[in-house]
Amino acid sequence: VAGLSQEAREALDQAEVIVGYKIYIEQIKTLVAGKEIAASGMTRELERAGLALDLALSGKEVALVSGGDPGIYAMAGVVFELARARALVFGSEPGQVRVEVISGIPALAAAAGLLGAPLTHDFACISLSDRLTPWTLIEKRLALAAEADFVLVLYNPKSKGRDWQFGRACELVGQHRSGRTPVGIVTRAKREGQLVNLTQLDQVAAAAVDMQTVVIIGNSQSFIYQDRMVTPRGYIEKYGTED
Amino acid sequence: VAGLSQEAREALDQAEVIVGYKIYIEQIKTLVAGKEIAASGMTRELERAGLALDLALSGKEVALVSGGDPGIYAMAGVVFELARARALVFGSEPGQVRVEVISGIPALAAAAGLLGAPLTHDFACISLSDRLTPWTLIEKRLALAAEADFVLVLYNPKSKGRDWQFGRACELVGQHRSGRTPVGIVTRAKREGQLVNLTQLDQVAAAAVDMQTVVIIGNSQSFIYQDRMVTPRGYIEKYGTED
Repeated sequence: VAGLSQEAREALDQAEVIVGYKIYIEQIKTLVAGKEIAASGMTRELERAGLALDLALSGKEVALVSGGDPGIYAMAGVVFELARARALVFGSEPGQVRVEVISGIPALAAAAGLLGAPLTHDFACISLSDRLTPWTLIEKRLALAAEADFVLVLYNPKSKGRDWQFGRACELVGQHRSGRTPVGIVTRAKREGQLVNLTQLDQVAAAAVDMQTVVIIGNSQSFIYQDRMVTPRGYIEKYGTED
Repeated sequence: VAGLSQEAREALDQAEVIVGYKIYIEQIKTLVAGKEIAASGMTRELERAGLALDLALSGKEVALVSGGDPGIYAMAGVVFELARARALVFGSEPGQVRVEVISGIPALAAAAGLLGAPLTHDFACISLSDRLTPWTLIEKRLALAAEADFVLVLYNPKSKGRDWQFGRACELVGQHRSGRTPVGIVTRAKREGQLVNLTQLDQVAAAAVDMQTVVIIGNSQSFIYQDRMVTPRGYIEKYGTED
C-alpha cells in the first residue's frame, strides 16, 4: 500500500478491531492479518460508524478505515455526526470514546498527481451524489464555482442509480467555460484497475465514470503539456522564464 | 516524519540530489543524509524548479520536495510551467526530463484531521496571496464560494508584506454567513510548533495567522461537538440516529 503513511500504519498495528468498507479492508488485509475484522457494503456508512463506536465503548481499540483521506466525503464526519446524535437522543455521556482522525492522501490529490498538476491554483470540490444533498444546491454550487473560475473537482459522478447528474453538471460548467477546457478523469487512483484519461469539456459527458472516479475540470488558464494537465500558478506570466 | 508515504520514502531513497525549500529539507534531513542537497528560501520557486530541471537534464535523479502535497499550491505546477516555457523560448526538446508527481497529505487534509471533520461536505480552497493573482479575482472567488455555502479553506492568509487581506476576506464571507460559524485555524500542521485553534467567524480576524496557516471556515451546517469542528454529510438528518 504505497500511499499509506507511517502514522496510519502504526494505528493499524495498535488496533484490536478493524472496521470498514470491504473494498478498503481488502487492500490492507496483509497488514491486519489475525485481527478481528468487520467489513460491510458501500451504503452502510451509519452502520459502520455505529459499530465502530459500540466496539470502542466496549473498551476495544478500533480502526475505522476509509480509502484516501477519512475526512473528505468519508467516515470521520459520520462518526462525529452519530456520536453527537446519540448523545442528544440517548443522553450518553460525552467523552466516552476518544476519536482521533489520521489524515491520508485524498483521492483528489492522488488523481491530481497522476494527471500532472491541475490543482496548483484555487479549486472547488463538489460531490454529485444527491442521496443526501438536494440537487438544487449541487447545481447552485456548480454554477457559482464555474463562474468564479475555480478548477472543479467532482466526486461521485455516477452510480448505478444516478446516471444523468454528470452530464447535467458538465453542461452547466460548459455555460461558463470553453469546450476546449482540459478535463482529467481518474478512476481507482493508485489501486488495481487504475484508469487515467485526459479529455476536454465538450467531450467529457461521454466518458466512463463511476463512484470510484474523480473528475478534474480545468480553469480558464489550465493547459495540456506533454500529456499532463497543468493549472499554472502564474510564475511564468509574472516573472518570465526565470527570475 | 509520520505523514510520509512509502512511495515518497522510496523516491527519496532513489534520488541522487534533493532540491527544496529549506524548512522542508530540514524535516527529512535524516532520510537524505549523504546526498547532494540544494536548499533555498521561500520565494525562490522558479529558481528551485529551474535547478531541479537542470540537474535532471544533466542526467541526475532529482527529488524536488514540497511540504504537504506537491500539487496543491506547490512545486509540481511550477516545474511544468517552467518546462513548457523553456521549450517555447529556447526550443528545447520535449520529453528530455521525465517528471513524476508523488502525491502526499495536503495541508488542508492534515488541518482538517486535527480539527475534527470539517471537510465532509463540498469545499472551496482559495489562496489569499495576491503576489501572482489579482486581488479582484480572489475577492470574486471568496464572495461566490461563500454564497454557494461551500466550506472555505484559506491558504496563505498573511505574510510579512500582506497584512490586510485576511481581515478583508473574513469580512466578505461574513456578508453571507453567521458570525457564529465555526472556524478552525491550524498552523504548522504535524510539524514542530503546531497550533490548533477553534473560534468563530466574527472573532477570527484577530487570530494569529501566517504563511504556515490553513484556515477552515464552516458552512451553514458546520458545528462544534466536544471541541471538534464537524461539517455533517447529512446522514443523521436523512436516516435518524441509525439506519
